Amino acid sequence: MFDYRQYQRGYFMPPVSCMDWTKKEYVDKAPVWCSVDLRDGNQALVEPMSLEQKLEFFKLLVAVGFKEIEVGFPAASETEYEFLRTLIEKDMIPDDVTIQVLTQAREHIIKKTFEAVKGAPRAVVHVYNSTSLAQREQVFRKSKEEIKQIAVDGAKLLKELAEKEEGNFAFEYSPESFTGTEPEYALEVCNAVLDVWEPTADNKAIINLPATVEMSMPHVFASQVEYMSKNLHFRDNVVLSLHPHNDRGTGVADAELGLLAGADRIEGTLFGNGERTGNVDIITLAMNMYAQGVNPELDLSNMPKLAETFERLTKMKIHERHPYCGKLVFAAFSGSHQDAISKGMHYRVEKDPAHWTVPYLPINPEDVGRTYDSDVIRINSQSGKGGVAYVLEHNYGMIIPKKMREDLGYAVKDISDVQHKEIAPDEVLEIFEKRYKKFTPVFKITEVHFKQVDGIQTVVTIEQDGKKVEIEASGNGRLDAVSNALAKHFNKPCEIMCYEEHALKDGSDSSAIAYVGIEHGAKGSFGIGIDHDIIRASIDALESAMNRSLIEE
Amino acid sequence: MFDYRQYQRGYFMPPVSCMDWTKKEYVDKAPVWCSVDLRDGNQALVEPMSLEQKLEFFKLLVAVGFKEIEVGFPAASETEYEFLRTLIEKDMIPDDVTIQVLTQAREHIIKKTFEAVKGAPRAVVHVYNSTSLAQREQVFRKSKEEIKQIAVDGAKLLKELAEKEEGNFAFEYSPESFTGTEPEYALEVCNAVLDVWEPTADNKAIINLPATVEMSMPHVFASQVEYMSKNLHFRDNVVLSLHPHNDRGTGVADAELGLLAGADRIEGTLFGNGERTGNVDIITLAMNMYAQGVNPELDLSNMPKLAETFERLTKMKIHERHPYCGKLVFAAFSGSHQDAISKGMHYRVEKDPAHWTVPYLPINPEDVGRTYDSDVIRINSQSGKGGVAYVLEHNYGMIIPKKMREDLGYAVKDISDVQHKEIAPDEVLEIFEKRYKKFTPVFKITEVHFKQVDGIQTVVTIEQDGKKVEIEASGNGRLDAVSNALAKHFNKPCEIMCYEEHALKDGSDSSAIAYVGIEHGAKGSFGIGIDHDIIRASIDALESAMNRSLIEE
Repeated sequence: MFDYRQYQRGYFMPPVSCMDWTKKEYVDKAPVWCSVDLRDGNQALVEPMSLEQKLEFFKLLVAVGFKEIEVGFPAASETEYEFLRTLIEKDMIPDDVTIQVLTQAREHIIKKTFEAVKGAPRAVVHVYNSTSLAQREQVFRKSKEEIKQIAVDGAKLLKELAEKEEGNFAFEYSPESFTGTEPEYALEVCNAVLDVWEPTADNKAIINLPATVEMSMPHVFASQVEYMSKNLHFRDNVVLSLHPHNDRGTGVADAELGLLAGADRIEGTLFGNGERTGNVDIITLAMNMYAQGVNPELDLSNMPKLAETFERLTKMKIHERHPYCGKLVFAAFSGSHQDAISKGMHYRVEKDPAHWTVPYLPINPEDVGRTYDSDVIRINSQSGKGGVAYVLEHNYGMIIPKKMREDLGYAVKDISDVQHKEIAPDEVLEIFEKRYKKFTPVFKITEVHFKQVDGIQTVVTIEQDGKKVEIEASGNGRLDAVSNALAKHFNKPCEIMCYEEHALKDGSDSSAIAYVGIEHGAKGSFGIGIDHDIIRASIDALESAMNRSLIEE
Repeated sequence: MFDYRQYQRGYFMPPVSCMDWTKKEYVDKAPVWCSVDLRDGNQALVEPMSLEQKLEFFKLLVAVGFKEIEVGFPAASETEYEFLRTLIEKDMIPDDVTIQVLTQAREHIIKKTFEAVKGAPRAVVHVYNSTSLAQREQVFRKSKEEIKQIAVDGAKLLKELAEKEEGNFAFEYSPESFTGTEPEYALEVCNAVLDVWEPTADNKAIINLPATVEMSMPHVFASQVEYMSKNLHFRDNVVLSLHPHNDRGTGVADAELGLLAGADRIEGTLFGNGERTGNVDIITLAMNMYAQGVNPELDLSNMPKLAETFERLTKMKIHERHPYCGKLVFAAFSGSHQDAISKGMHYRVEKDPAHWTVPYLPINPEDVGRTYDSDVIRINSQSGKGGVAYVLEHNYGMIIPKKMREDLGYAVKDISDVQHKEIAPDEVLEIFEKRYKKFTPVFKITEVHFKQVDGIQTVVTIEQDGKKVEIEASGNGRLDAVSNALAKHFNKPCEIMCYEEHALKDGSDSSAIAYVGIEHGAKGSFGIGIDHDIIRASIDALESAMNRSLIEE
């Protein structure tokens, strides 16, 4: 039954207004990143990863630059236990990387976790219990005091085992379902845990606030974070961590505003994999910093490779519109966007090559391993002359004259408007050639001879309907002379309004392409010619332009 | 080159702090929704929609409940022109729906737009020009004054043509690339346009602020919106509209915080389709309101059908983790989540059926046409006993006794841990039956006779290794007597620690299923029996339990 009245807001505001974070504009420093891909992410896959797949994923995370990696819940699954043991026994954990293991605040699970992590050079033991009103009432049927005691007992056991066992342990506590917990109560529980741990500057504790289910607008979450940050015991020795999910589609905003509100650390996943709508996407967060000139402290330069590995190992697909990495996120189909991008790129080269300010492209696609040609300017019925000209220039080295672009743009649009599909560069070339060169002509120029006497004199042989005629004419240049011959023969103006010609490739043996436009109606008629000889190319172009003009009369 | 130093923040803060919106907690009223699927959304498709597809999409939008629909940029594309004419000429626009057409602030395009919209019962003519610093400098190479004049000239022409042409016109102005525009300047341009239009209570004007490219954190955008809202001329007669995109993955947050900051209207698309990373997703926005008890004023009850139609017409895929509609967004694979959901559902039935507070599920999946069985509780190596029990109960009506659940949970986990794939309900059933019934037994009970004398006396025929033996025993009940016979024969305890039995289906001719657990090691051994006769079912269950106990000795 689609009835909004069965719902109410399930979160709680802090007892005092906590909006100091709004005085900050942006995140000016990368947080500590903790990947939970191998735990929260893996747990949410229809087909969880095998041992081998996890090992490859771990290496990927290390290569990207993660220094903290949650590797699993080893007491809950045989594969996670084995994976952890393999990492430790095969000495696969780099010196600057710390692994993290999750455990519920229950005695036998904590003990099994310490066994599983034996021999790790360093480890964060991450203990949690659920503190929300709904879970207290519905799942545990326990009072606030009893739930707090679970956390305190867990914290004590962690401390006790860490002192007894060999190893280098740090502690993390999460009041799970924090977003459904009264902030004063969450604070009380976290402070009770911190009072057990007594963190120091050398041995900080992590307090992690999970938006297990995203329940509020992001500024509400940020105010909850600020309240915690301002009131935690041993605050200087606490790393305040966030673990946002994305149920309301605002996980990235939760993390960003939460960082302004005092958080130091983010738990998230690559591409936002994770339970239900996913964990917060660390790639988007890092790239958002990057795009504002802040060092994200992760290396995301080879996004296509990263995406390929992720998709292969998780069997999840990255959406085509996923920020910074989706297939379509740099694509400009619209004519006005293509035009602005093209102008912006020229402006950049001329005026400010050190900075990126190109319209419609938040970052330079090349930074993350993408290309302009296939990823940015793409042609369909929404595109305009600028995009079509861009495609011909960047794929075939043809620099279409300004005056010719509108005519060409309409020619492409006429076809894309009917076909309703993307037009690939080779199809654009085909349309271009069919319109300006490879169509059935009214006449052909079979021979041209020039004499240089008082300007240029020419004899042009025109073949039409199987008959050949020789026409004499003169002009102030060769092309002018031929155009005069055509005008004379067809008794129709053949005024050259545009002529451009350039080599198609570098080197002297390459062809030249000539573009010629003649007056015709409001917009003119155009043709092209391609030949090793620049005169032949330009005459071919003129021949085509005149033929088009005759056809369209 | 992956170098953050080439970027800087490209947005501008308002001249005064505008954070009054932080005093509000949530959006308490649905905004005016305007779908731009047929324009911004369609423009961003690799294969834009055909006329027929657009007509179907338009009907879909009307059915969902949109009252304002931008139908295209009719001066820019033949298909969009035709589509608009078809809507008008075939009288397809309902009385309570207003179409909207987009035009650049250029004379010939505005004039063509008014031609295209002739005969429409009502229409919003939406005029825009780009105002950002980057576009002024790089694309238009014009001063602030010149850019403002383009807007003012466009506004004047709209007014003039609307007075001249027959029809019922409203006006909308967008300072395109607002997010890259100095707020004071954007305000100056919008106010210049409003001064031309002089909107009244009966003829309001729409000022639309596009986050053409999302450039800032969402609270910065909200402060820009608040600044505009507080300083627009004729504010009471202006509908302040937002048009967020999603380049930073915070489009939903922009819209939500922007609504708190004073906006009245949202332009967006279904499922966030649109240029690059997409327009803001109206479905997520509406469902976010819904999940907080606010009427979204759109009917999203049949999400699967909506999704199917969208995917078919746009050829885009909806991501599996897309809030409220992705295939996996209600899925719980994790054992603890499954357990909490199961308890939450029981709590709801018992204590508060009118309200939804089930843990881990932001809304009741059934509200949007989804089911618990296939969409919520799903089994893989991350799942636990609660999930497995849920699947057997909800798919096969088998209510597994509490004491038996752990044993069954481990049996399923042993298999899922190795297979690394989801285990479908029929596979769970198979594992269940193989473990408790359909395995090769050590012995069979071939006959049982009872006599009621001082309690129950029994003669049990046991077949083992081809030999049959008759065992006499007694007990205080039939099952007790048989268990005593087994204990006697095998010289081994057969203490019943759990026995439950229930009909498998309603009606007297249905089978019963019995579950029996006997003491064995720490956890016991279990068996099931299914029969029309409840005694036979329970003896079969006991027989299986004893066999398991013998096998696992």
